[in-house]
Amino acid sequence: MAHCDTLISAPWCITMDPPGTVLEEHAVAITDGRIEAVLPQAEARDSFEPGQRVDRPGHVLLPGLINAHTHAAMALFRGFGDDLPLEAWLKTRIWPAEQQWASAEFVRDGTALAIVEMLRSGTTCFSDQYFFPEVVARTAADMQIRAVVATPVVDFPTNWAAAANEYLEKAADLVHDPYAGHPLISTAYAPHSTYSLSDESFRTLRVMADQLDVPVQIHLHETAREVRDAIADTGMRPLERLRELGLVNRSLLAVHAVHVDTAEIELMAETGVAVAHCPRSNLKLASGIAPAAALREGGVTVAVGTDGPASNNVLDMLKELEAAALVAKVSTGDAAALTARDALAMATIDGARALGIADRTGSITPGKWADLVTVDLATPNSQPVYDPVSQIVYTARAEQVADVWTSGRLRLDRGQLLDVDAASIVSRANEWQQQIAAGTRT
Amino acid sequence: MAHCDTLISAPWCITMDPPGTVLEEHAVAITDGRIEAVLPQAEARDSFEPGQRVDRPGHVLLPGLINAHTHAAMALFRGFGDDLPLEAWLKTRIWPAEQQWASAEFVRDGTALAIVEMLRSGTTCFSDQYFFPEVVARTAADMQIRAVVATPVVDFPTNWAAAANEYLEKAADLVHDPYAGHPLISTAYAPHSTYSLSDESFRTLRVMADQLDVPVQIHLHETAREVRDAIADTGMRPLERLRELGLVNRSLLAVHAVHVDTAEIELMAETGVAVAHCPRSNLKLASGIAPAAALREGGVTVAVGTDGPASNNVLDMLKELEAAALVAKVSTGDAAALTARDALAMATIDGARALGIADRTGSITPGKWADLVTVDLATPNSQPVYDPVSQIVYTARAEQVADVWTSGRLRLDRGQLLDVDAASIVSRANEWQQQIAAGTRT
Repeated sequence: MAHCDTLISAPWCITMDPPGTVLEEHAVAITDGRIEAVLPQAEARDSFEPGQRVDRPGHVLLPGLINAHTHAAMALFRGFGDDLPLEAWLKTRIWPAEQQWASAEFVRDGTALAIVEMLRSGTTCFSDQYFFPEVVARTAADMQIRAVVATPVVDFPTNWAAAANEYLEKAADLVHDPYAGHPLISTAYAPHSTYSLSDESFRTLRVMADQLDVPVQIHLHETAREVRDAIADTGMRPLERLRELGLVNRSLLAVHAVHVDTAEIELMAETGVAVAHCPRSNLKLASGIAPAAALREGGVTVAVGTDGPASNNVLDMLKELEAAALVAKVSTGDAAALTARDALAMATIDGARALGIADRTGSITPGKWADLVTVDLATPNSQPVYDPVSQIVYTARAEQVADVWTSGRLRLDRGQLLDVDAASIVSRANEWQQQIAAGTRT
Repeated sequence: MAHCDTLISAPWCITMDPPGTVLEEHAVAITDGRIEAVLPQAEARDSFEPGQRVDRPGHVLLPGLINAHTHAAMALFRGFGDDLPLEAWLKTRIWPAEQQWASAEFVRDGTALAIVEMLRSGTTCFSDQYFFPEVVARTAADMQIRAVVATPVVDFPTNWAAAANEYLEKAADLVHDPYAGHPLISTAYAPHSTYSLSDESFRTLRVMADQLDVPVQIHLHETAREVRDAIADTGMRPLERLRELGLVNRSLLAVHAVHVDTAEIELMAETGVAVAHCPRSNLKLASGIAPAAALREGGVTVAVGTDGPASNNVLDMLKELEAAALVAKVSTGDAAALTARDALAMATIDGARALGIADRTGSITPGKWADLVTVDLATPNSQPVYDPVSQIVYTARAEQVADVWTSGRLRLDRGQLLDVDAASIVSRANEWQQQIAAGTRT
C-alpha cells in the first residue's frame, strides 16, 4: 500500500484527458499538491493508504474551471451603471469611477470579493487584467487560488502609472520579484487594445515580453466599431496591425474576437493565437456573438472568460460555459454546434492551453497540480442524470460546487470556504459601495 | 392595532405596481391568503399585530415569478438527447420516448420534480402544456403552486387521447370539474401548433373555448422552417391562418414568436395577443432570438417562459429573465435595450397579464393573492448592491431564493421546502431515468 495525501472518490470523473472522457466509479490520488493517480475505486482501495479520504456519492469530479479573462477588482462596481449603451457606460460611469476610486486598497478588496465568488463557484484559476497587478498577485497568492496576473499597459496616465514605459517597467518588476517560479502565480502583459497604444509602445512591449518570456493578452475585435475605427485610423484591422508589429504568435491571447472573418480565423490557427471568449459580456454590452464554433473547427484554441463583473455581472464559470454553448447554437443555426463536451473543454483544458499553463493544470492528469472540483448532481434541478457532462453544462449552479482544491489544498469543503473571512470581505465591499454611490463625480 | 396573519419586512420591496417601483424599508401584511397592505415598516409596527412576523434583512421582497410556458413533466427527460439538431432530437429521442413512457404516473412524477425545482427557485405560478393535464392540475393543487393547466390538442393519437375531439372533450371535463373556481388552478386550451391541427379542429376548439371562456395558447412562429412550411402548405403564415380562423384576439397567447415581422407585431398589439418568450430554449434549439424589445415597444404584453426542461434544461426563471435581457441587447445591438426592470416586469406582472390572471397575481397589490418571494442579496456574488433590481436580474441564483408564499401559504422557509418529500420525488425520478435509459426503443 502506497501513501497518498488525499483520495477522492466519485461516481463520475471527467478527466479532460483527452477531452470528453468520463470515468465511472474512479478515484483520484493526490500527493504533495499534485495528481498522483487516476484509477478505478476498487483498485484504489487496494493501492493507496490516504491521509484523507473524500467520498462524494452523487457528485462529479472534474478539473477546476479556468476563467481566461476578467478584471476581478471591478466586483466593487458590480451593477454600477447597468443597461446603458456601451459608450455612456464607459464614459459616464466606469472611467470616472475608476479614476476616482481605483487604488491599491480598492484592488485588494475588490479582488478578494471576486476570489470568494470564484472559489465558491468552482473556479481554480483566473486570468486578470487590472491596475495594481502586484496587489492582485498578492491577494490571489494569500487566498490560494491560481492566477495569471496580467499587467495593463496603455499610453495614458491612470492611478497606477503615468505612461507606457512606467507600466512596462512595473510589469517587469512583477515578473522578477517575487513571483518567479511561484506555484500558483504567473504573469503576462496586457496591452489594453490596439486603440490604446502607439506602435512605439507595442514595439517596446514586444521586446520586453520576449526577453522576460511572458505571454501577451489584449482586447481584440470586441466591437464592430473598434474594427471600423482602426481601419479609419491606421488603414488596418487590429489583428493585421498586431501582425505588422510582430505580436501575432503563440504567446498572444486575443480577448473577445467577436468580429473576426474567415481569413483571420485561419491566421490565428496558423500562428497559434488563442482566443478568450466572453459570451455573457458580449451579450450584455451588445458587442455581438463571437464565432466560437468556427474558431474551434478552424483549429484555434478557445478559452472562456467572464470579463469583469461590471459587465457580466458575475464571475460564474458555470453560467459562462453554458452561455458559450447556447449562443454558439443560435448564432450558427445548428443545435448540434458547440456541445456540452466542447464547452467544458473550453473552460478547463483549453483555458489552460490558452494561458500557456497546460503543463500545470486544466485536466486530471498525473503530474499536474491538483486543481479539482466536485459538483453535486443530486439536487432536483440536475435530476435525473442521463449524462453528467450535460448536467454540468446545462443545469448545474454555483451552489452545487461542493469541494475545491487548488494545488491539492482544500479551499472549499462541502460548500464551506476555508481560511477566508468572507463576512469581513463582504463588509468592506459594502463600505466601498456606500462611498462610491454617494460620492462619484460623474 | 389590526390583526394580520403574516407581516413580511425587507429593506427592498419591488412591488411591480407600477412596474419599476422599489420601496425601501417597507412591509407587506397578509391576511386570508391575500395581500392586505404595503406600508413603511415604521407604520406597520404601529398598525398590525401579526400572527407571524418575517424579517429579512439583506433580502428583496418581490412578486413570485411566473413561468408562462413549460411542459413540466418533461423534467424526467432533462438531458436526454442534448446537442442534437432539432429534427433528430424530436424524431429520434423525444417523440419515441414520449410514446413509450408518457403515462399518468410519468406525468405525476415528472411534474412533482418540476414543482420542487420551481418552488425552490422562486416560481409561484407556471403555465403547463402536457398530456394528462388532469394529473398536472392535481399535482399542482396538492403541492400548492399556482398553475394554468393547458390541455394539449393535436389531430393525431397519443398516449392520452386518440383524436382532436377526444382532446377537446377531456379538456372540457377539466374545466368543469373539479377546478372551477379553484384558488390556485385555472385552465386553458393548448392546440400544439398550426401544423398539428386541421382547420376543422381549430374551428371546434374556437367554439368550445368561447363557450367555456378559457384562453388559448399555441406554439407559434417558433422556427423559420415552421413559417416557411406553413406558407408552402397553406399559402399563409401561421398567424395569418389563425386570424382567418378567428383565433387572433385577447384570449390568445403566442408561445415563442421568434420569427415575426413588423406587421405581425402590429397585429398582435392591436388585437391584444400576448407572447410567451422562451429565450433559453430558442437559443439551445437554435430557433433564433425573438424580438422581445420590439414586441414590448410595439405594445404587446410579453411574458417569459422556460419551455420544457428537455430543451432548456432547467425551470429557473432567474436564469430565464436574465437571458431575456441579455439576448435582447445583442440582437438589437443596443446595450440599453430591455433593461433589468423590463425583464423583471415580464417575469411577474406581464406574465400574469399574458395568462389572463393579473387580477389575482403578478404584483404586490392589496387584494391580490399573496404570491411572494424573498431573495437574499447578501451573498458575495450579489455584493455590493447599487440597485436591487439589477442584482436580481444579473446576479441572483436560485439558491438565494429564501422564502416563497403562494396564496399566502409559506412553501419555502429560508430555503427549506415545506410539506414536500423532495427526497422521494428525486428517488422516483431516478427510477424513471434508469428505465428510460435502459429501455427506450429509438
